[in-house]
Amino acid sequence: MSALEHECGVIGIFNSDDLDLAHEIYLGLFALQHRGQLSCGIAVNNGKGQCDFIKDFGLVPEVFTLEKLRSLSEKGRGIAAIGHVRYTPSDFSELSNNQPLVMRYARGSISIACNGSLTNYLQLQNELEKKGAIFQTASDAELIGYMIARQRIKTECIEDAIEQIMPRLEGAYSFTVISPKKLVAVRDPNGFRPLCLGKIKNSYITASESCAIQSMGGTFIRDIEPGEVVVIDKNGLRSHRKNCKGTSSLCVFEYIYFARPDSIVDGASVHLCRREAGAVLSREYPVNADVVIGVPDSGLDAAIGYANESGIPYEIGFIKNRYIGRTFIQDKQQEREKSVQIKLNPIRCAVENKRVVLVDDSIVRGTTSANIVNLLRGAGAKDVHVRISSPPFLNPCYYGTDISSRDYLIACKLSNEEICRQIGADSLGYLSFNGLNKIAGHSNLKVCDACFSGNYPTQIVDAGINDKFSSKLKSIKK
Amino acid sequence: MSALEHECGVIGIFNSDDLDLAHEIYLGLFALQHRGQLSCGIAVNNGKGQCDFIKDFGLVPEVFTLEKLRSLSEKGRGIAAIGHVRYTPSDFSELSNNQPLVMRYARGSISIACNGSLTNYLQLQNELEKKGAIFQTASDAELIGYMIARQRIKTECIEDAIEQIMPRLEGAYSFTVISPKKLVAVRDPNGFRPLCLGKIKNSYITASESCAIQSMGGTFIRDIEPGEVVVIDKNGLRSHRKNCKGTSSLCVFEYIYFARPDSIVDGASVHLCRREAGAVLSREYPVNADVVIGVPDSGLDAAIGYANESGIPYEIGFIKNRYIGRTFIQDKQQEREKSVQIKLNPIRCAVENKRVVLVDDSIVRGTTSANIVNLLRGAGAKDVHVRISSPPFLNPCYYGTDISSRDYLIACKLSNEEICRQIGADSLGYLSFNGLNKIAGHSNLKVCDACFSGNYPTQIVDAGINDKFSSKLKSIKK
Amino acid sequence: MSALEHECGVIGIFNSDDLDLAHEIYLGLFALQHRGQLSCGIAVNNGKGQCDFIKDFGLVPEVFTLEKLRSLSEKGRGIAAIGHVRYTPSDFSELSNNQPLVMRYARGSISIACNGSLTNYLQLQNELEKKGAIFQTASDAELIGYMIARQRIKTECIEDAIEQIMPRLEGAYSFTVISPKKLVAVRDPNGFRPLCLGKIKNSYITASESCAIQSMGGTFIRDIEPGEVVVIDKNGLRSHRKNCKGTSSLCVFEYIYFARPDSIVDGASVHLCRREAGAVLSREYPVNADVVIGVPDSGLDAAIGYANESGIPYEIGFIKNRYIGRTFIQDKQQEREKSVQIKLNPIRCAVENKRVVLVDDSIVRGTTSANIVNLLRGAGAKDVHVRISSPPFLNPCYYGTDISSRDYLIACKLSNEEICRQIGADSLGYLSFNGLNKIAGHSNLKVCDACFSGNYPTQIVDAGINDKFSSKLKSIKK
Amino acid sequence: MSALEHECGVIGIFNSDDLDLAHEIYLGLFALQHRGQLSCGIAVNNGKGQCDFIKDFGLVPEVFTLEKLRSLSEKGRGIAAIGHVRYTPSDFSELSNNQPLVMRYARGSISIACNGSLTNYLQLQNELEKKGAIFQTASDAELIGYMIARQRIKTECIEDAIEQIMPRLEGAYSFTVISPKKLVAVRDPNGFRPLCLGKIKNSYITASESCAIQSMGGTFIRDIEPGEVVVIDKNGLRSHRKNCKGTSSLCVFEYIYFARPDSIVDGASVHLCRREAGAVLSREYPVNADVVIGVPDSGLDAAIGYANESGIPYEIGFIKNRYIGRTFIQDKQQEREKSVQIKLNPIRCAVENKRVVLVDDSIVRGTTSANIVNLLRGAGAKDVHVRISSPPFLNPCYYGTDISSRDYLIACKLSNEEICRQIGADSLGYLSFNGLNKIAGHSNLKVCDACFSGNYPTQIVDAGINDKFSSKLKSIKK
Repeated sequence: MSALEHECGVIGIFNSDDLDLAHEIYLGLFALQHRGQLSCGIAVNNGKGQCDFIKDFGLVPEVFTLEKLRSLSEKGRGIAAIGHVRYTPSDFSELSNNQPLVMRYARGSISIACNGSLTNYLQLQNELEKKGAIFQTASDAELIGYMIARQRIKTECIEDAIEQIMPRLEGAYSFTVISPKKLVAVRDPNGFRPLCLGKIKNSYITASESCAIQSMGGTFIRDIEPGEVVVIDKNGLRSHRKNCKGTSSLCVFEYIYFARPDSIVDGASVHLCRREAGAVLSREYPVNADVVIGVPDSGLDAAIGYANESGIPYEIGFIKNRYIGRTFIQDKQQEREKSVQIKLNPIRCAVENKRVVLVDDSIVRGTTSANIVNLLRGAGAKDVHVRISSPPFLNPCYYGTDISSRDYLIACKLSNEEICRQIGADSLGYLSFNGLNKIAGHSNLKVCDACFSGNYPTQIVDAGINDKFSSKLKSIKK
Repeated sequence: MSALEHECGVIGIFNSDDLDLAHEIYLGLFALQHRGQLSCGIAVNNGKGQCDFIKDFGLVPEVFTLEKLRSLSEKGRGIAAIGHVRYTPSDFSELSNNQPLVMRYARGSISIACNGSLTNYLQLQNELEKKGAIFQTASDAELIGYMIARQRIKTECIEDAIEQIMPRLEGAYSFTVISPKKLVAVRDPNGFRPLCLGKIKNSYITASESCAIQSMGGTFIRDIEPGEVVVIDKNGLRSHRKNCKGTSSLCVFEYIYFARPDSIVDGASVHLCRREAGAVLSREYPVNADVVIGVPDSGLDAAIGYANESGIPYEIGFIKNRYIGRTFIQDKQQEREKSVQIKLNPIRCAVENKRVVLVDDSIVRGTTSANIVNLLRGAGAKDVHVRISSPPFLNPCYYGTDISSRDYLIACKLSNEEICRQIGADSLGYLSFNGLNKIAGHSNLKVCDACFSGNYPTQIVDAGINDKFSSKLKSIKK
Repeated sequence: MSALEHECGVIGIFNSDDLDLAHEIYLGLFALQHRGQLSCGIAVNNGKGQCDFIKDFGLVPEVFTLEKLRSLSEKGRGIAAIGHVRYTPSDFSELSNNQPLVMRYARGSISIACNGSLTNYLQLQNELEKKGAIFQTASDAELIGYMIARQRIKTECIEDAIEQIMPRLEGAYSFTVISPKKLVAVRDPNGFRPLCLGKIKNSYITASESCAIQSMGGTFIRDIEPGEVVVIDKNGLRSHRKNCKGTSSLCVFEYIYFARPDSIVDGASVHLCRREAGAVLSREYPVNADVVIGVPDSGLDAAIGYANESGIPYEIGFIKNRYIGRTFIQDKQQEREKSVQIKLNPIRCAVENKRVVLVDDSIVRGTTSANIVNLLRGAGAKDVHVRISSPPFLNPCYYGTDISSRDYLIACKLSNEEICRQIGADSLGYLSFNGLNKIAGHSNLKVCDACFSGNYPTQIVDAGINDKFSSKLKSIKK
Repeated sequence: MSALEHECGVIGIFNSDDLDLAHEIYLGLFALQHRGQLSCGIAVNNGKGQCDFIKDFGLVPEVFTLEKLRSLSEKGRGIAAIGHVRYTPSDFSELSNNQPLVMRYARGSISIACNGSLTNYLQLQNELEKKGAIFQTASDAELIGYMIARQRIKTECIEDAIEQIMPRLEGAYSFTVISPKKLVAVRDPNGFRPLCLGKIKNSYITASESCAIQSMGGTFIRDIEPGEVVVIDKNGLRSHRKNCKGTSSLCVFEYIYFARPDSIVDGASVHLCRREAGAVLSREYPVNADVVIGVPDSGLDAAIGYANESGIPYEIGFIKNRYIGRTFIQDKQQEREKSVQIKLNPIRCAVENKRVVLVDDSIVRGTTSANIVNLLRGAGAKDVHVRISSPPFLNPCYYGTDISSRDYLIACKLSNEEICRQIGADSLGYLSFNGLNKIAGHSNLKVCDACFSGNYPTQIVDAGINDKFSSKLKSIKK
């Protein structure tokens, strides 16, 4: 139950069969919905020289009615298509930032869907504006589109243009592009955000997570490498690796919280990573207790790991209301205090008079944890031992999660003992750094753990980067 | 993952404090959302001689925007209020059947919200029509309202009228009524559907399940007895038990599937009943296996029970997509086959090369079970042993679930061995009758198990009752 | 530009061809839209023993999308169908009052759409409630339906039941009913509200106004007589005249304001009546002037009559904004003052430095007239002579217009001279009673002119009738 | 009742008082609604360095709910604001083409709202794309914005940049821009589309038509000259006339059909121009007749002119249904034939047995005229003499009306006699060229009459210009 928010999810498909691409992308986006619930969109290259698209605020099944899906298919089943889900930033209304972004440039119509966050966005935007550029959104996709368009004038093909601009882009980006005749998928050289390759029949799919490929009924092939540019057209798939540095900095929070447990990310099962984190945690912070419970849904895998390793029985401690949507009303202060109970209700008989180990994925601000511990006390729990399946969150993230300031981070302000007291727990244990390194169960997994360690894989150019998101969001909006 | 559908959920509150009743009912309805997702409604007696109400198709947070909730509160915080959630029947559009039903009769304005199904509805409707009655809906609430109105002419108070008509009503009904000055809650003499009593501050709450009372921040007091009529007004609470027969026939499926695990129904924890069913099942149908997994969400509790009793490790085997709503599109036959994978995706590494015990709450038609077993095979499971935490479903239900014909019941057509083969399992075990009797862990729990046993607690008058729902639904609709 | 509101419009059709009835009713309702813009509805007897219906708030083209119209036709083209448009009362939200009302009674499913207002509604409702009746709406249609249902038990056919209850109904009512096999159209014995008969191919149509029949491409046959009951079934049309008294009291405001100018009502062209009113007015209140202008739209016909009779040139003096809908925002006091200019803008060059005769249909509160005169002064008019094509409005109406209290009537409080001064006119002339009698151009036209004369054609039973509408509206609402 | 469609309407205001700009623009746009019903939008510079905006499909009161208007005002009452209404092209769904267009460039955030059509759009777009530009819409506003952005790098102020790019823009354009500190209004050197200046209190308004200024309660000051650039900021108003050529080519159809009759356009009253056209027509094509009627609404002014000049009485011949919206359903071929009667119904008694002069503004395809004549015959008209208040429409328009091909123009294919026969009239008269020159009543009014004469005021560069709109529309769309 992290207070962090996902950045986005992307998916693309090139039609080498006779698939109804709009419908395929719909299924894939639906499986990526956990990566973004604010808005979603689909763009289809129907082979008539243009991209048809629909994008709007809302969940995938809300935006894409049968009628709308059909309108995307009516000009043909499609040559290639991409989709995007977007998470919720502070400002709800910036319609123009929704993706995919569809634009026309010298070589025709292209669409871009991007997951990530460029750390030198403002610098690049500034440079372009000085050359007369105009910006209609605050999205990385538009900036990347601009740079492709300007580079494309000098290149033979779009993939060359992309490879040539990649050294200029700093930060996290995994994006897919439809050009008039190709689908191109790109992952930044650090590989901050996941991107993988699959196939349905003869048609290649590129997606943020493998669960999307499985939900579509396709087969997972492999992860796309950091720095790799994958090009798919009627001649098949080609890979360009000029920007591959051989390193990797996948965001560790993909394993801890962002990705769906049934996904395989950079070779590791997300579910197993979380189970293993729980198991390590059990060895690092053992305790005598009667039951182990997880905070639904992101703490459940680690809780099973903790239970199995410790031999303490696993239990279901909370019922999470499945019908919470973005329209749920909490307009009164008194309601805010109740709000955790509305979403999460403890099962009294599962915890009453028991010593409870409570497993969660992270503590960001600390208020949610305090509420949950309090609910367990109210349901009669004797002891509550909080175990967190990640190290303390100490540093802002500039690569696409929405924590870009230390002001919100409880671990920056209080010691572990103080946090334990503040959330009302009987004991508190965080996964160690050492433990974190073991969770993937194989030695060569390299991640970005800057949020825990402060070791940023890229240089953060802008001193005022903390304000980057806010200024970016404010610059243009609906 | 039962193919059964809930009937409905009801809630009522009498204001002895200064509560904003519309908002309280909203929170309670939201916790009862699992009992009905088709439509919902709130009626508030604002003390001005009338009931204001809003009801519409959609989930609670969809129907009740902040603006609408406020419009219900604008004439005052309310004397008493009721709410209703309704499940989805075959015909989507019958707007007029939404509840609560608000009507005017000789003594002013009343509202009724009802959960259940009268088995002599057509007979009673027929009798009333012969006396000149008109019907604008196909709901039990309207028929009950009519009978109250006709009886009320001869009685001192509404509770007397209700007690006098109860012997005429056959079947299942738990309903709440707001009269101009009272809140009345009624449970049928067999107690087919649950109904309980709670309190928030000094204000009494009546609700289908205790989880609603908890979510509102209130305190659970007790179950309302079968046959009991509870009257709450400014003088407090009074109970009328003339129709209490001392027997009980709570629908056993409330324990198996309908109720939320964190509810206490007729003295028993739903979560513990399900765990116990899993434990008994483990003793009745033991098997050598590597992991136990439950079908989310209704099989999870029993799976933990099975795992703990058998010593086989519990695992998370499937990820259920939480964003499925009633608008999700499945318009092509090929998609229907895929549809289980869209909703449920197996976690390969959790089941690959493993002998899996798969626990589910019931098998109705068998198609869903076959799909799930197939998914596990596709994810590499070596063996799949299906364990069902209830006996075979053999008989139609006339008390408010939507199975009213044997034609849909696989257990009526095939032997257990045949079912096992048809769903592709390596073994299949159903909870025994004997086992079923043990699940509540105390001897005096009496349930209606007619769907398993064929022993109906009431006489089913109408030979053609199988067609009852359909004819009722057809009679008047929007 | 009267401040009066229409009551309603009704339409019915019996299929003796292979017409798509839902679509035919749609076209007819659309032509009756001026009689009610709040809500509308269509009910179709599809010959399957029930009535399908759709009704909602909004204009006809807003409520009836192609998809919805088709859903009404999908079970067949229909045996008979009715439609209703409803005007806006003070309280917007009473969903349940929308019509047609569909109900089930001993002989099957019937629907009713009613235009008018029963003056003994509360008395009849009271009587029925004492016998155990329940009411779910505040509409005359429900009360009439109840009375038909109770009478129908004793009669051979529905038309007998209707004829037998008509003597109990006091006030204004024109209604159409679909029974399982018939279409019945009924006009009250005073004929307060219009109702006429037409035909498209071989299929009979009954409608509030002849313009609906024309818009559907049908042929007007005749007016339905006051007190007449017209029955149409597969054997053709039969007329029952037991309740015809030979008298007539058509609401004179149908000619002055309510009906569409292209309709023929009780034998007289509405357009010609209004032209004639203008002509008579010109003789009664001649004036030296340069131009005659009408207040759009209801003053235009009379203005032409005044111009032609007087020889003063007719001009277009105002442009009326055609896009005003019920959603137009006027939330600030300052805007209310501007609001007439937003809707009506004077054409300066048409009135500047001119002596203007301004023709309108009526003055109710006087504020609108003052605004309009003020606009003309602002546009440079030298003189403004106001001419009203009806006598002073002095008495409340109990037959279905929304003026049921003298408190709103400026003519009850001020003399004509005072009104002239208050609205800022140079002179003011109202059509005389004598003149009113001439407007239909034939001697035997009998109207209800109670609003001018105070001579009510029926006894007004309830002393507190002034509050009738409000109490009725309050009794049940959404 | 022309088959031509308006292009657009624009409005702007600079706040020198404490006006709530969003609300002011709302009132102004509402008065310009006749110029475009497809979509509308408002952008407000709130002085925080950015432009807030809302734009969507729908009429002004549909798009701008109170809640949305308030959301535009919540950050302050605004420094400057612009609005836009857009007409309906063939393709409904191109969301991104809605205006105002809000963009960020080197000097901050600007918004543009444009009325007109650039004849060298494709050429300019092509040039820009070759320099790396990307296009997200198919609107002139985006292209103009791009050119301003590129020029602005080299200039001191935005008005200089605008003046410098104007010689590159060919065709029709009247646009308003908000820069961070200014409101700029620009009219092309030919003045194809109207643009005028007004004031409310101390705040300047620029609008497509004077009726908008009046509806807002403001005062009309003067027309903006062809080629003029008006700049308004906190220092007041400045005018730049470097591009004024002293010539004028206002689209003559603004007088004949587009503009609202209560507007003053380039010094002439639209209402008087139309009256005068009717008067001239009466002298050019006199006829013995009993009544003159106009086709609502655009034929009414000329009909009065014809009637007054000829002495034949003016009559109301048709009732136009005021509730037609873009959602009205006409899905069947048979309905299309009826459709004119649904919108327009003749008043039988006004035309029966009469010789009728029917005045309309133009004949484009001829089908509508044929339907109207047919309706009059059906209503009993003895003779129907059609008089058209403009010359035959013979040439495509490239300046913003939607006729860009001769294929649709009946006058290109048939002689006047043949047209007369085809529409079923007894006689047909078009206003002569000579007559057209007289309609404004003063000699120095210069118009573009290319649609009649073929004399285009600008060179039409692109041979394939006929396909311009379609290709433009296709290039990028939602």
